[in-house]
Amino acid sequence: MSDSSPFAHRLEKLRPSTIREILKVTAQPEIISFAGGLPAPELFPVDAVRAAADFALQKYGASCLQYGPSEGFRPLREWISAEMATRGVTAPADQVLVTTGSQQVLDLVGKAYLNPGDVVLTENPTYLAAIQSFQALEGEFVPVPTDAGGLIPDAVPDLVRRHRPKFLYTIPNFQNPTGVTLARERRARLAAIAAEHRLVIVEDDPYGQLRYRGEPIEPIKHWDAAGLVLYASTFSKTIAPGLRLGWTVANPEVFNRLLILKQASDLHTSMFDQTVAHTYLTQTDQTAHLNRIRRAYGERFGLMDELLREALPAGYTWTKPDGGMFLWVTGPDSLDSADLLQEAIAHKVAFVPGRDFFPREGGRNHFRLNFSNSTPERIREGVSRLGELCRVRQAGTAPAAR
Amino acid sequence: MSDSSPFAHRLEKLRPSTIREILKVTAQPEIISFAGGLPAPELFPVDAVRAAADFALQKYGASCLQYGPSEGFRPLREWISAEMATRGVTAPADQVLVTTGSQQVLDLVGKAYLNPGDVVLTENPTYLAAIQSFQALEGEFVPVPTDAGGLIPDAVPDLVRRHRPKFLYTIPNFQNPTGVTLARERRARLAAIAAEHRLVIVEDDPYGQLRYRGEPIEPIKHWDAAGLVLYASTFSKTIAPGLRLGWTVANPEVFNRLLILKQASDLHTSMFDQTVAHTYLTQTDQTAHLNRIRRAYGERFGLMDELLREALPAGYTWTKPDGGMFLWVTGPDSLDSADLLQEAIAHKVAFVPGRDFFPREGGRNHFRLNFSNSTPERIREGVSRLGELCRVRQAGTAPAAR
Repeated sequence: MSDSSPFAHRLEKLRPSTIREILKVTAQPEIISFAGGLPAPELFPVDAVRAAADFALQKYGASCLQYGPSEGFRPLREWISAEMATRGVTAPADQVLVTTGSQQVLDLVGKAYLNPGDVVLTENPTYLAAIQSFQALEGEFVPVPTDAGGLIPDAVPDLVRRHRPKFLYTIPNFQNPTGVTLARERRARLAAIAAEHRLVIVEDDPYGQLRYRGEPIEPIKHWDAAGLVLYASTFSKTIAPGLRLGWTVANPEVFNRLLILKQASDLHTSMFDQTVAHTYLTQTDQTAHLNRIRRAYGERFGLMDELLREALPAGYTWTKPDGGMFLWVTGPDSLDSADLLQEAIAHKVAFVPGRDFFPREGGRNHFRLNFSNSTPERIREGVSRLGELCRVRQAGTAPAAR
Repeated sequence: MSDSSPFAHRLEKLRPSTIREILKVTAQPEIISFAGGLPAPELFPVDAVRAAADFALQKYGASCLQYGPSEGFRPLREWISAEMATRGVTAPADQVLVTTGSQQVLDLVGKAYLNPGDVVLTENPTYLAAIQSFQALEGEFVPVPTDAGGLIPDAVPDLVRRHRPKFLYTIPNFQNPTGVTLARERRARLAAIAAEHRLVIVEDDPYGQLRYRGEPIEPIKHWDAAGLVLYASTFSKTIAPGLRLGWTVANPEVFNRLLILKQASDLHTSMFDQTVAHTYLTQTDQTAHLNRIRRAYGERFGLMDELLREALPAGYTWTKPDGGMFLWVTGPDSLDSADLLQEAIAHKVAFVPGRDFFPREGGRNHFRLNFSNSTPERIREGVSRLGELCRVRQAGTAPAAR
């Protein structure tokens, strides 16, 4: 962008989202897409939401269509407060801010903390739309070293001293894109390090309820005696993303700032969606519904994992998440996953190349596979197509496009 | 805020919204509130929305609960495109971006254009939450001179030369807070001046459909051959605000930037609200519904105007809008409307003092009255209470709180 551009500097930082372009291509039904981060629509509680919408409009009438408080619909905030207790976090309803999806939490947090050039510590790779959101506020990214147990807390103090980050952004459960989970002892340690260094932690937990094996682990916020952790979550994976309902829990000082920014951003979140969701949540057996989702996603992960073992040639490895919607493939050094995607689309299968998840460089020989949004039949066919491409590539020749 | 504040500079600019505090007080049902900018809930199409929700969930099933395109639900964008034609604006559906209320348009426009210290030209007073939204992006405000015909276009070129504003923000129909409408010939002239000076205009039109007398006037965008006008509107006044559905029309270059920022802000607007609204709009006679609202608001304005003539002492004047939801009272120079509000609340009636609508200073002897959200009975009682306070004040003594 030239100096004569009428637009703000922040737009120079924002790179166009290649994932959006991928998703447009993969919207064609003949393409088997492991690209999107979509939950399984066949598990959405459509009939229960329909009943809840009907009931909410009868019960609340015009008030669920009127302007509402920027904080959110009080009964929903109370429901979330009780839900947080089951996750191991004491969060009075007064500290719960309802947002337009948990994506909005990232926007509000960025607005609350980031001046141009301010540093955010993140996992590397990390959530694509978090990168976009913080880049839109001209934040810079510094990666925290990670291993199979998630980010390494003892690497944080040195990064804090060197970069004076405004906050650390992490997805502790079944991370997007890697599927890695932050180990329990590291969560306690990270909370302690945050307290010692007055480091704000933004804990993004969209997938925690999607655990299909192993024991749940308390959020980092469970150990947050210092009140430095902003916890964010969403109903996108437990009810449905089309409602755009998320929330954050923050200490009162931070809450009040987020609230003013929320009001300036969209006044408040849809009262209709909030009253319908609250009605749904109180009328339906959530445990049974979540267990159905967990079972289905666990089966889909298991199937994909098994098929990848048969389909992918030597030199490919991938993560084995205990929940969530994604696994992360690492290919040989020679792999260019953006190239592979072009071939894959020609062969009617898709994924997201690793590059998009790295705030700076990296990711060339990686790609992300989503297993929640494809039926077992399509997982079989898609992995078969993908495996063939990788095997032929490894053998040095490309198969003809079908 | 001290240098050691962990928060971003933009928070130093944002003053807490006193209107929020007022609205909390006035939520008590015994207070007659002319404060909020709320439409009349008894005119919300609750039953039709209920039928539309039921129909949409049957027709679209899981797809109206899934993630959707950041641009918006295509059939709704097409409906809006057709609606724009009836307002005198050619807007292909590809140039229509659906937003989370029209408030979000202000956030996106601010993000697209404003670097810290950049200037926005506005009417003075102007919409409170526009001030907040642009202040959250560290914009500065320069007022454009106005009179009873709205802002004065010929004053703009000099302001452009002196301040190099990023855009001019205006509410041409039944402005908030004054109720003033920008004259037709000024709209054409403003579009011409914008073209000559390459000035972007943000035309915020939430109230245009609420005209209860006189002839509709085409938006400024009608004359926008240069593609410099971003037009924003909303379903908050024509369906209901609880759905949080607004839109903007922008040229392709601007549209693409707003779209990336929209995605970073909340991914997309509720698919549920969008499909329900679209179903409602295509199943219901909009003209009949809008005529009911227009008639009711016209009657309420007429009643309030008549009662104010009897109730307010000499030295008070007010605007006579041809539509919308607000009128604007100017008191004698001695009036401090913030003081008056304290007394008024003690007497169970409320309004918004003028101060909040001025980006810099001003407004002390003004206040805004909303007439859309009170029944005729409450308008009678509320104006009577308010008039008594003003008369007693004028006479130099305060009545006892009831």
